[in-house]
Amino acid sequence: MSQAAQQSKKNSRTAITPTREENFPEWYQQVIKAADMAENAPVRGCMIIKPYGYALWENVQNHFDGMIKAEDVQNAYFPLLIPLSYIAKEAEHVDGFAKECAVVTHHRLSANDKGELQPDPESVLTEPMIIRPTSETIIGESMANWVQSYRDLPLKLNQWCNVMRWEMRPRIFLRTAEFLWQEGHNAFATAEEADKDARRMLDVYRDFFENYMAIPVYAGVKTPEERFPGAVETYTLEAFMQDGKALQGCTSHNLGQTFSKSADIKYLDQGGALQHAWTTSWGMTTRTLGAMIMVHADDDGMIMPPRLAPHQVDILPLFKDEKDTPAILAFCDDLQKRLRDKGVSAKIDKSDSRGSDKMWASIKKGVPVRVEVGAREIAEGQVTWTRRDLGRDGKKKASVDEFVDSVQPALDAMHHDLYAAAKARSDAFVHDVSSIDDIRAFFAADKKGGCKIDYVLVKDSPEFEAVAKEYALTQRCLPFEDGGTKVIVSKAY
Amino acid sequence: MSQAAQQSKKNSRTAITPTREENFPEWYQQVIKAADMAENAPVRGCMIIKPYGYALWENVQNHFDGMIKAEDVQNAYFPLLIPLSYIAKEAEHVDGFAKECAVVTHHRLSANDKGELQPDPESVLTEPMIIRPTSETIIGESMANWVQSYRDLPLKLNQWCNVMRWEMRPRIFLRTAEFLWQEGHNAFATAEEADKDARRMLDVYRDFFENYMAIPVYAGVKTPEERFPGAVETYTLEAFMQDGKALQGCTSHNLGQTFSKSADIKYLDQGGALQHAWTTSWGMTTRTLGAMIMVHADDDGMIMPPRLAPHQVDILPLFKDEKDTPAILAFCDDLQKRLRDKGVSAKIDKSDSRGSDKMWASIKKGVPVRVEVGAREIAEGQVTWTRRDLGRDGKKKASVDEFVDSVQPALDAMHHDLYAAAKARSDAFVHDVSSIDDIRAFFAADKKGGCKIDYVLVKDSPEFEAVAKEYALTQRCLPFEDGGTKVIVSKAY
Repeated sequence: MSQAAQQSKKNSRTAITPTREENFPEWYQQVIKAADMAENAPVRGCMIIKPYGYALWENVQNHFDGMIKAEDVQNAYFPLLIPLSYIAKEAEHVDGFAKECAVVTHHRLSANDKGELQPDPESVLTEPMIIRPTSETIIGESMANWVQSYRDLPLKLNQWCNVMRWEMRPRIFLRTAEFLWQEGHNAFATAEEADKDARRMLDVYRDFFENYMAIPVYAGVKTPEERFPGAVETYTLEAFMQDGKALQGCTSHNLGQTFSKSADIKYLDQGGALQHAWTTSWGMTTRTLGAMIMVHADDDGMIMPPRLAPHQVDILPLFKDEKDTPAILAFCDDLQKRLRDKGVSAKIDKSDSRGSDKMWASIKKGVPVRVEVGAREIAEGQVTWTRRDLGRDGKKKASVDEFVDSVQPALDAMHHDLYAAAKARSDAFVHDVSSIDDIRAFFAADKKGGCKIDYVLVKDSPEFEAVAKEYALTQRCLPFEDGGTKVIVSKAY
Repeated sequence: MSQAAQQSKKNSRTAITPTREENFPEWYQQVIKAADMAENAPVRGCMIIKPYGYALWENVQNHFDGMIKAEDVQNAYFPLLIPLSYIAKEAEHVDGFAKECAVVTHHRLSANDKGELQPDPESVLTEPMIIRPTSETIIGESMANWVQSYRDLPLKLNQWCNVMRWEMRPRIFLRTAEFLWQEGHNAFATAEEADKDARRMLDVYRDFFENYMAIPVYAGVKTPEERFPGAVETYTLEAFMQDGKALQGCTSHNLGQTFSKSADIKYLDQGGALQHAWTTSWGMTTRTLGAMIMVHADDDGMIMPPRLAPHQVDILPLFKDEKDTPAILAFCDDLQKRLRDKGVSAKIDKSDSRGSDKMWASIKKGVPVRVEVGAREIAEGQVTWTRRDLGRDGKKKASVDEFVDSVQPALDAMHHDLYAAAKARSDAFVHDVSSIDDIRAFFAADKKGGCKIDYVLVKDSPEFEAVAKEYALTQRCLPFEDGGTKVIVSKAY
């Protein structure tokens, strides 16, 4: 630890060390640890998503799944393993195919001479298989079987599953060898419908990012160099983290006929002619959990966006005198029930921890609202409650009735406040510039955020490439809001 | 096809060929195909779960997940890949460890001299990994890290995930190389709590089988030869399919300290002494979809148990005159909305298929209730509706109001009728016998079902083993209802 950091720790009243300012990447890891959301697995590059982190992912799944079903998307499940020949076929069609993947070569373990377990040499697969890094090839094959005529289109399929990409520099949630995601694969009769769909699914994502995750985004088109291999267009949501780096929140690809040609997805049109379909794909991953942390959390730990929080209210019984315990617990049970009746999820910390420890545990986990219930509160008929994002000094007193009625409005207000704060930061992070020199000057001064510049100035520019290389910059997207004429350039996760 | 089968097909008014009587295994495959639930994947031994089959699994997940959360179980996610050394450790502790599994040995593909993709020889993993056949070892390792004191117990974890076991004779849903399941892993401070929990989780499963899947079961204990390797006791639900074979519906294991010792899950007890925990595990798989088919479907196709049906009502607009189409569709939309307001899921078949084709599609998919809406129905103010399980002749006429009010009671009645019919079959399938000769005679006569006999008569009996081998019989369980003194013996899936 540096001397400055040691000094800071000494003076600190923050629950997380280091602070965001001191060391953002390390702060990120410590927030995850303090909130008990996930940890590194003993398997290289993989993570264990712990119950509190997984509950957040479940809420992402539940809400987003409802949104895609409203778009007439159907869920299905396709095999984990993909034969090598499928990948070879895709590799022929698609430049930039990623080759880092887990390869299955045997189907049995057996003991060797020394009695040690090993892959049984007699169980070598005739064709190696890879663990899906994405399922375009295998879903494309099914679509080719299932689609015969225009009546079978559109076909909109999605699966929630695990995928693997061998990562050399893993980081929990952001970049792991195995991660969880949804991958949507849609097929249409016309080019127009496919492009409209790819844009529509980006709108659905945007709705989800803004109205559930409380994350403001730049919605736009990827530049050709950042486009998904084989895609006609890649649409993306880019969000700025508190350290000023961008993070790609999700992508939606208009794949044109690239994959329908390699998978041979054909349909008889209304005139009786055989046509290749037009496809899209769209995905969002457990990486979004990392984004919520890096957008909302503070130096005291996680702040859960209220509409996705694993539970929205922490009820903290404060035990001092044992004789009061039954009455306090009965009071808490009743409160929990009243909140549930209002559609608010609440959890009671019934442990025998000290009141201040319960409070700090709740703060570090980022539970949106916490309420304290002790013998005094019951006697006075008043509870003390706090919104997590208003800091340790935002305590309020209220009667139980007032509190119960206040929670849902408080959660909504907190959602809007979190979004507004993130939006203000996001806006401030993007600087309009008019030359590549401006970009160089911005990053040379170690400023946080990104630059927005006319795309024609950086397109195919060797000068820009040199700057981008020097400062590890990437072209994030051409935001729709500028009509696709400007590009945002920044460091990114 | 045999001559008898051909004759039968000629005379048949059934939608599925062959019938259950003619060829049960083939009927099973044809029901899955006709209902469009799943198909074999191009990957050996794996299946593709199609949208209609996956929607059934989603409903299994949703309802069962709520039930286990009510038991204070927390969901989490653990890595897909398990290092070989973990398996070796388990193999030391557990006899009968299954060695058929997918082995990952490389982490990259590359092109060879001929430009063909191959596992990159330079990417050999220092330690091979296997795709989880179950996660006892890796979850055990986490539990060992997470459990320190008695305060951390009980710890109840579950994950919904995919697993792989290399299957030599795959069969959709029943036995596939990759399948989906939930695996619960609980840890306790005492032997008593662990056994109580293993029995409790079996009760939860039983509730789910009876009250959602409408499947009657024999709940009991596995005999030592059928016990999960390493378990103290394996509890099981055994269900009889319509062909008289048994199917293990799920299992719940009291693992004693076997796994806590191999994974070193220790806690400090209240007296300050270090103790090994006591663990359980409990699982249910996509195999239950096969069970629902083999228990409920008939010679016209699938019959969905109403509480898990992907959708409960098929609204079938009958188009004759184009000018009526808008009015019919508006009527159907309104009807769908009214059903949804009652908590009933309904789907409208808006295709231009003929009315009889729509009806047969609905029958083959086993949608619990179907309702026909044509110009005449609208004019008369009466719809025609049918419960799937009452056959093609169970049509009723009702006003829209009457119909809307009748659906939920009809779904409940159908659930109870399906259960009652299956229970009557299940009861009739189990024959009380008093000697091994009786068992031999029963199966020699090719009777359907199983025999129940005093366990002491078959335990360690070479005579019984010979009969079991001759007729491919297994000991299904010692049902609780007989106090564990009798065993059910039958053929099984």
